[in-house]
Amino acid sequence: MISPGTQAPTDTADRQRALERKARENSITPFWTVVDQAHPTEPLSKLVPYVWRWPLLRELLDEACAVVDTSDGKAERRAFSLLNPGLGGRYGTTHTLISGVQKTMAGEKASAHRHTPDALRFIIEGHGAYTVVEGEKIPLRPGDLVLTPSWRLHDHGNEPDSQMVTWMDALDVPLVNLLDASFFEQFPGRAQALTKAPEESYHRYGVGHLRPSWEGVPDGLPSPLLVFRWEQTEEALRRLAQVDADPFDDVALQYVNPFTGGAVLPTIDCWIQMLRPGMHTRAHRHTASSVFHVVRGRGYVVVNGERYDWAERDFVVLPNWAWHEWVNLSDSEEAILFSVQDRPVLRALGLLREQALETNDGHQ
Amino acid sequence: MISPGTQAPTDTADRQRALERKARENSITPFWTVVDQAHPTEPLSKLVPYVWRWPLLRELLDEACAVVDTSDGKAERRAFSLLNPGLGGRYGTTHTLISGVQKTMAGEKASAHRHTPDALRFIIEGHGAYTVVEGEKIPLRPGDLVLTPSWRLHDHGNEPDSQMVTWMDALDVPLVNLLDASFFEQFPGRAQALTKAPEESYHRYGVGHLRPSWEGVPDGLPSPLLVFRWEQTEEALRRLAQVDADPFDDVALQYVNPFTGGAVLPTIDCWIQMLRPGMHTRAHRHTASSVFHVVRGRGYVVVNGERYDWAERDFVVLPNWAWHEWVNLSDSEEAILFSVQDRPVLRALGLLREQALETNDGHQ
Amino acid sequence: MISPGTQAPTDTADRQRALERKARENSITPFWTVVDQAHPTEPLSKLVPYVWRWPLLRELLDEACAVVDTSDGKAERRAFSLLNPGLGGRYGTTHTLISGVQKTMAGEKASAHRHTPDALRFIIEGHGAYTVVEGEKIPLRPGDLVLTPSWRLHDHGNEPDSQMVTWMDALDVPLVNLLDASFFEQFPGRAQALTKAPEESYHRYGVGHLRPSWEGVPDGLPSPLLVFRWEQTEEALRRLAQVDADPFDDVALQYVNPFTGGAVLPTIDCWIQMLRPGMHTRAHRHTASSVFHVVRGRGYVVVNGERYDWAERDFVVLPNWAWHEWVNLSDSEEAILFSVQDRPVLRALGLLREQALETNDGHQ
Amino acid sequence: MISPGTQAPTDTADRQRALERKARENSITPFWTVVDQAHPTEPLSKLVPYVWRWPLLRELLDEACAVVDTSDGKAERRAFSLLNPGLGGRYGTTHTLISGVQKTMAGEKASAHRHTPDALRFIIEGHGAYTVVEGEKIPLRPGDLVLTPSWRLHDHGNEPDSQMVTWMDALDVPLVNLLDASFFEQFPGRAQALTKAPEESYHRYGVGHLRPSWEGVPDGLPSPLLVFRWEQTEEALRRLAQVDADPFDDVALQYVNPFTGGAVLPTIDCWIQMLRPGMHTRAHRHTASSVFHVVRGRGYVVVNGERYDWAERDFVVLPNWAWHEWVNLSDSEEAILFSVQDRPVLRALGLLREQALETNDGHQ
Repeated sequence: MISPGTQAPTDTADRQRALERKARENSITPFWTVVDQAHPTEPLSKLVPYVWRWPLLRELLDEACAVVDTSDGKAERRAFSLLNPGLGGRYGTTHTLISGVQKTMAGEKASAHRHTPDALRFIIEGHGAYTVVEGEKIPLRPGDLVLTPSWRLHDHGNEPDSQMVTWMDALDVPLVNLLDASFFEQFPGRAQALTKAPEESYHRYGVGHLRPSWEGVPDGLPSPLLVFRWEQTEEALRRLAQVDADPFDDVALQYVNPFTGGAVLPTIDCWIQMLRPGMHTRAHRHTASSVFHVVRGRGYVVVNGERYDWAERDFVVLPNWAWHEWVNLSDSEEAILFSVQDRPVLRALGLLREQALETNDGHQ
Repeated sequence: MISPGTQAPTDTADRQRALERKARENSITPFWTVVDQAHPTEPLSKLVPYVWRWPLLRELLDEACAVVDTSDGKAERRAFSLLNPGLGGRYGTTHTLISGVQKTMAGEKASAHRHTPDALRFIIEGHGAYTVVEGEKIPLRPGDLVLTPSWRLHDHGNEPDSQMVTWMDALDVPLVNLLDASFFEQFPGRAQALTKAPEESYHRYGVGHLRPSWEGVPDGLPSPLLVFRWEQTEEALRRLAQVDADPFDDVALQYVNPFTGGAVLPTIDCWIQMLRPGMHTRAHRHTASSVFHVVRGRGYVVVNGERYDWAERDFVVLPNWAWHEWVNLSDSEEAILFSVQDRPVLRALGLLREQALETNDGHQ
Repeated sequence: MISPGTQAPTDTADRQRALERKARENSITPFWTVVDQAHPTEPLSKLVPYVWRWPLLRELLDEACAVVDTSDGKAERRAFSLLNPGLGGRYGTTHTLISGVQKTMAGEKASAHRHTPDALRFIIEGHGAYTVVEGEKIPLRPGDLVLTPSWRLHDHGNEPDSQMVTWMDALDVPLVNLLDASFFEQFPGRAQALTKAPEESYHRYGVGHLRPSWEGVPDGLPSPLLVFRWEQTEEALRRLAQVDADPFDDVALQYVNPFTGGAVLPTIDCWIQMLRPGMHTRAHRHTASSVFHVVRGRGYVVVNGERYDWAERDFVVLPNWAWHEWVNLSDSEEAILFSVQDRPVLRALGLLREQALETNDGHQ
Repeated sequence: MISPGTQAPTDTADRQRALERKARENSITPFWTVVDQAHPTEPLSKLVPYVWRWPLLRELLDEACAVVDTSDGKAERRAFSLLNPGLGGRYGTTHTLISGVQKTMAGEKASAHRHTPDALRFIIEGHGAYTVVEGEKIPLRPGDLVLTPSWRLHDHGNEPDSQMVTWMDALDVPLVNLLDASFFEQFPGRAQALTKAPEESYHRYGVGHLRPSWEGVPDGLPSPLLVFRWEQTEEALRRLAQVDADPFDDVALQYVNPFTGGAVLPTIDCWIQMLRPGMHTRAHRHTASSVFHVVRGRGYVVVNGERYDWAERDFVVLPNWAWHEWVNLSDSEEAILFSVQDRPVLRALGLLREQALETNDGHQ
């Protein structure tokens, strides 16, 4: 018998279990049973570091040119997406970004569409292809970065009698799907009208410190300049190399909206980076994840204590909150890396964090 | 008959299958096999509308007061989180937000900690509890909104001999975990020192159009004002009701950082909303998801054609991209709703979209 | 002896004089003849500190009520402007600001007009007057600050059977005329229509941390909130006094646009300031000039080593770049000062500079 | 005899005169006596349009090289300032801006100094000169624009054995003196140390859409890029000419801070403008005043109905609020104009206004 005002321990435990059960039956969880899972003490990335080698990617692309039929305007059929082995088949090179490669052949045309994910292309090789964004036709040349920001109508093609052209694609599809904010619309009709001059945004804004006098700072989040030409990019790398560098990323430049200083897309940061001959950087980590494309050179990156070698045109994924340091294996040639990162997402939401490795002189 | 140099259809199909297999074996997916799943034509929310009734929540809280032991400073044990039935047990009231209720008893003290998720409290009933944020002790009174922004050290307690106090919690834990950017730190020692005057931020910034002359616009994303007093909130509702209202949300106010006009937290928008007696609003939908707490009154909301009734102190979750319209069932009393929304996340990333229902005079 | 090809000093001097003459005849000045005047080593203010005493101002206003005819709607005839004695008759209390006093009588109405100078009123005494700004009628009560920003149509009046009402006016007329950007337009018709609710901006934005949910940050430079009520101002002073103060200005608050944190007008900063009983501040100087109105109390200000006493309702002008420190002569009563300053002009143009007096413990 | 309660008209007039006198004796002006002068209905510019011809300027510069001694480091002695004939000898090309020309000879060095006025140079001819700004040495080439923002230490010189170099100077000295905010400091020692790489800001920021990855948007009002190279400027003009133009200014570009989109200096806007062969623009007017330097070509500008011809290297001043339209007199050659404007001052203070001429097809 239980005396008034007291409870046997077993009764309390029973009542607590009953309470927890009743809560769960009503779509309520007792916080004390989940607090530790809900609040990890630091990021528990499922992502793994991984290198996709160019010879394999080229082989797949060439075979796709031979066997995949795109005659009905579905040139997207000639594209491959890189899936992070840590995500168990989920669609993503990282948890927020998807990157891949695509090859088009002379005379092909993709059909026009638009979607809320932000997208971009970095051209790997070949001449003759173009992208059309909201009526502006942009010829693509190796090393160029071309933006197709959220909900801008876009299509692409390859001129007759031109070369085969290969590029890197990157989008924030995984992020947009995590936020469940995907909209997609096929354009009624195959190709959109060319309502603007070729490369109009480049003619208008291509010298980033001069702007048409009658325009204010352009509205909206993405850069009004849609194409970033390789010769300007390379010149900027060479110039910066003469005056400064970063201990973790060496000679690294962020592509920015020339009239706001912000990232070129609200969800994706693009960087170009030169590792000078013989460079071995210090290690750091950050909450941003990234995908690298090796424009030139060979080297390795040490990620959480393991070495990952890369060579020209390979793709490398770097998980968030992973220690990493870069090495250029050549003593005479520079290595150049293009990358996409989800950094602006984390910055906008107050979640960007960075940490330098303090021990062992900054090396893992 | 097949001429030399061409291929039988079966060969091509075989080769394509082989190509796809080889890609997949190498952590690569042929884009043409996933394009439709990757790009939904519009959001496919797994969230369902749901109402948690106050009598049940109160019963659970009271039973927890009786049976859950918090004597070791783990007052978080007296909290319940509302799980959206559509998420299959995943921790979230929506895909980005978690909300719940919590009750503290006289003399209790929670231990201090900090985390990257943004958090806030909206006080439901009782006097005598307080929250401490970065050395500032803030007494809690019914109707007050109190912020504990990302990585600010916070703890809470309840004065001896005071009333039991119940509040609503809301955090962006699901979002932070989707982005894998959770950091959590227990404070070494039970309670932090009170380094600031009580309610200092309220004394400093509580009249939003007057700022200490020696300060510029405060740095950082969250509001420097940490407590929003109910008497000011209610006064603002009454004033606005005299001059304007919104067709979809009636007399609705956003809590803002008084020196930037931005949301009070970079990831969570807080609103207070008055449905005037007899009000039946028009329907719209938006990519933001939200959780409502009924401060006062009774009514219903029609979500995607179905009616959900609510009464005082209930909690209501509204999925993203769901049509909804509000009804106050009283012809004489106003209804007041407090809500949290993930709107600033979508706005910052260029993904906020809103649509009014055009048919049937705006009604479902 | 002078060798061929050289010149006798006198020749050179002659040629230089001829050169200078020729330049001047062609609207060109040799820079070397003016460099020192063009580039003073520090500001050479012509402004002098000065105190206008309330008894005199009241006498003038009362006499103007008796003898100046405003029956034709020219109520501006009952206003006086304070001219800085250092400006030699030029229209300005400082080089950028003009301030003055105005009195209206029951039943009077001024005619509506608008102008590019920014203007504001701070009410000194009396009830029953009102200002109309762009269709919004704003009743004026002692201690209220009311804005009539650039090019907003405004008029004012005094209800029949009301009290006589006296206020302080302040405008940036001298600045606008220095920049030669004055536009003025008389409204065709005596009074504008009341197209908005009374005090609409106060109802809409009067609680500075709550904003109608359907509005973004309001466009434009001036504050969307047009009236700042004394009871809020006084409450803010009392609250701030509990937690912090400035060594130079004691308990000082800047009125700000509640949605941008900027000055309420792009050219005029308004401050309210409490000198606590017995307070003697430290001295500093800044490139901003200001005009003070004593809301309450008595004391003195030491400007460049000289003492200037002031009492309730007096007006005090403080030149730019003049050392100054404030003293409240009462040990039991606080003194309260309202002021206007050209600080936002200097800040926007990169010319705001401030210096603390380092010697003698910060005292002149 | 005057009956009680009434006044003879003459008495009232006498009393009003006495009142006005008493006010004036006390540094107070009756507003009704000055209202019209204080509030002009539109700008009453004292400025006149004027053209300074290059042959005269060159002659003066050459003679100054012969007769003005700069051996003591006062190379500013070889500069001439253009005074607007309408200002009666006051120092200013407009009421806010001063422009002029300067010539340096091989081996000369000016002494280092800094001042609060913003300054810039646009190079007219010659190679071999340089400017040093805060430790960064910038070689000057024809067509380059070089900034020396407020309070940045600067000096200049001309290498031994180099050419004579001539440039245009422009500063906001008149504005800074109107605001009485001039500070000037001679550097103790002749030349400052070269603490940065040559043209460091150009190496760092010269491609305006790429920024060192470790830097955020640079602080402060002026552009962090200090030199704008002619080859980039000319390329931008050619590109823009292919896609768009303005009806009033033809192919016109504003130099901007590449990371904020703002004017390169907080008080001075710089433009480069191409009038295509045969162009005759439409007329407009604005509250900004400007000074033009003809980089190339010949034509005229119609100002308030009068024609002012100009040819290569001439200087033209355009008053504020003056109707103006531009004509290129050549049918085969383009004309190029560089200009400085006080537009950012007026914009920051809410005083920028622009009006197109509606009559006669937009022509005076």
